Amino acid sequence: MKQLEPVRVGLLGLGTVGGGVVNVLKRNQSEIARRAGRGIVVTHAAARETNFPGVDTAGIETSTDAFAMVERPDIQIVVELIGGYEPARELVLRAIASGKHVVTANKALIARHGNEIFAAAQKKGVMVAFEAAVAGGIPIIKALREGLAANRIEWVAGIINGTTNFILTEMRDKGRAFADVLAEAQKLGYAEADPTFDVEGIDAAHKLTILAAIAFGIPLQFDKAYTEGISVITPEDVGYAEQLGYRIKHLGITRRTEKGIELRVHPTLVPERRLIANVDGVMNAVLVKGDAVGPTLYYGAGAGREPTASAVVADLVDVTRTLTSDPGNRVPHLAFQPDCLSDIPLLPMEEVETAYYLRMRAADRPGVLADVTRILADSGISIEAVVQKEPDPAAREASVIMLTHRVPERRMNEAIARIEALDTIAGKVTRIRLETLAAN
Amino acid sequence: MKQLEPVRVGLLGLGTVGGGVVNVLKRNQSEIARRAGRGIVVTHAAARETNFPGVDTAGIETSTDAFAMVERPDIQIVVELIGGYEPARELVLRAIASGKHVVTANKALIARHGNEIFAAAQKKGVMVAFEAAVAGGIPIIKALREGLAANRIEWVAGIINGTTNFILTEMRDKGRAFADVLAEAQKLGYAEADPTFDVEGIDAAHKLTILAAIAFGIPLQFDKAYTEGISVITPEDVGYAEQLGYRIKHLGITRRTEKGIELRVHPTLVPERRLIANVDGVMNAVLVKGDAVGPTLYYGAGAGREPTASAVVADLVDVTRTLTSDPGNRVPHLAFQPDCLSDIPLLPMEEVETAYYLRMRAADRPGVLADVTRILADSGISIEAVVQKEPDPAAREASVIMLTHRVPERRMNEAIARIEALDTIAGKVTRIRLETLAAN
Repeated sequence: MKQLEPVRVGLLGLGTVGGGVVNVLKRNQSEIARRAGRGIVVTHAAARETNFPGVDTAGIETSTDAFAMVERPDIQIVVELIGGYEPARELVLRAIASGKHVVTANKALIARHGNEIFAAAQKKGVMVAFEAAVAGGIPIIKALREGLAANRIEWVAGIINGTTNFILTEMRDKGRAFADVLAEAQKLGYAEADPTFDVEGIDAAHKLTILAAIAFGIPLQFDKAYTEGISVITPEDVGYAEQLGYRIKHLGITRRTEKGIELRVHPTLVPERRLIANVDGVMNAVLVKGDAVGPTLYYGAGAGREPTASAVVADLVDVTRTLTSDPGNRVPHLAFQPDCLSDIPLLPMEEVETAYYLRMRAADRPGVLADVTRILADSGISIEAVVQKEPDPAAREASVIMLTHRVPERRMNEAIARIEALDTIAGKVTRIRLETLAAN
Repeated sequence: MKQLEPVRVGLLGLGTVGGGVVNVLKRNQSEIARRAGRGIVVTHAAARETNFPGVDTAGIETSTDAFAMVERPDIQIVVELIGGYEPARELVLRAIASGKHVVTANKALIARHGNEIFAAAQKKGVMVAFEAAVAGGIPIIKALREGLAANRIEWVAGIINGTTNFILTEMRDKGRAFADVLAEAQKLGYAEADPTFDVEGIDAAHKLTILAAIAFGIPLQFDKAYTEGISVITPEDVGYAEQLGYRIKHLGITRRTEKGIELRVHPTLVPERRLIANVDGVMNAVLVKGDAVGPTLYYGAGAGREPTASAVVADLVDVTRTLTSDPGNRVPHLAFQPDCLSDIPLLPMEEVETAYYLRMRAADRPGVLADVTRILADSGISIEAVVQKEPDPAAREASVIMLTHRVPERRMNEAIARIEALDTIAGKVTRIRLETLAAN
């Protein structure tokens, strides 16, 4: 090996992921240097804490002054692991201004401020790498930006939040209710004390925003993502879906259509024979459909100390390799050259077309089903399957479950409003979108 | 976009994959140029044929003189799609000597002559890219070499031959016999007229040899791969495996152990709940276990015109990007710097340790099972499960199926020889290896 000086790295944040980065770089230092052609060492870390359990900080100068660290002349790459919008944004911009390359695991930061950050990096000729921001250890950014570079990407559908996938898996395996499983997930450390970010799909929308940008060559537009959580899903729906041959997964979906690009996170019925329907527990998976390659799927741990560190360190190796390349010939941040981004609009959710699972409670009386199917027919909605469950004798109500063909969301909303207005229908209609995720 | 001249490419071979490369480059030319920062055009092609159905050869100068083409001064990258050892090897070496970068889809060539070819390329400062050589359109080479660069890879297990996966899937779904499905696969074009290469695992061993080299940083050693085909698998075995909760898959497995590296292709029982057990038909999937990231899986089409072209064109984009990089800082051919390869030995199959599925026909007499289990116990082989099937009254024989714990192959071979020598056991013992592919 040529005896190049090791690359010097400064960490912002030395918590779970930061500690993982230090540990992986030390444990695998010879393996990594054999690959990268030179060593990669963490020489500095800035963190609020002063005590780092489970992390070997030997050789690392720690301080609490993050702003001083990002401007040190003796580090070449800054790794941002603070999370959140500020001061992460300010620190990353200062690191860039000071000529540092940046590696970050911060999906919120990239989804919301990525356009500004990448423009600054482009101008300065430095790189901002963010493999760890989406789906943890799965190299999905690399697969989309480079591995599938030959393709016109048609759509991407991913299980990109481990918390919601764990909850849905437990609901199915054990017939348990959402709130019940959530409480357990919080106890196990799979869910935060305030679970809104995960459970309502905001975290998934951050990641999906990034995937959409690099799949289609569009700017990051987090504000336009449609987001729906899993707290509305009941064990009944999970069970009925199963009986019909489907699993309910919380998917992030982005699709190129003639009218615009869909960008949406919501619970989704998926045929049980699809590989992605069988991704269980806290694991993540991203299914990508390219015009040449067809469907490809990428599966692995979407979070956790070492899986996330795996992605951060892969980025460090990539950045190390390109230190001597012509900046104009690097892989562009958003896969497409910055002056070649597309202005295809994002499609409002009302214009998105999907199939649907509907569940309603209907009076146990003749003619009810006829009323409902008439409303659907009037709206041009074709029915794929109807299941009527034995009525509950006490309530004198029966559950009716329907699967429909594809229809624009606006038309389905109108039909549901008319169905809910029927005297014979009790309460709200449960509506869950259904995607076949077929190869064609 | 900066107005760089397009990169000029010459194709060796303009058949199925070559035609796919031309079509994908033309159809997606703007998408690809927006990513790569410059155009990539096929300007020359050398092929035996002079007629190219389904391929738009406008703008391509075709000839039958491959040797002249690889030395043309007006092309920068040669794409080798001839297949086989010679003249592919000679042409690739001449292209390198003439200063061309090379992209190839030729697994046989790389598995057998890769060490020589990479050494020549290294010396000349050019790249040889081979993403299409393993698992078609799945970017597994990139994932292993770059995406998982932080990891000490522990093992890789892959369905890397679509023909055998199609046959095993049909055998399971329809209870059909091997020979019967093979004949159908040949009719459908999924299997060659001479199916030996696929069915006996030689094609998979080529690909596995490449995966092992880049996973562990060892030279390519195809001659040391252990290879066993699927022609021995019967519908009975498929059915019994299913009853026990397993699927039979034809896997290529390479694993790092303390004693050496395993490199083996053979039918394998895999727990049905593993994602890879649910990869059906002609699709491929590769499961990689890294020490930091844990298990990750990559799934997609392993062959076919456009999936293979997807990988070839991704390599063209990669090569185009690194045209201006320092050769010393490129991704090394075998993932590790050429002077840092490891000399860990490959492990002979007799020393490999796996669990086993055994099936034998035993006389319907008391004491037979006791004799068999005594022999296994004497060899230190623990039994995980035993199933005795109702005896066939006519034959007065019963099928006995056993799953064992892990044991070195040599000891299992000895035990099987002793079991087969028993008077009460008819014919050969069927032996299929079993892997749990557990995360830990």
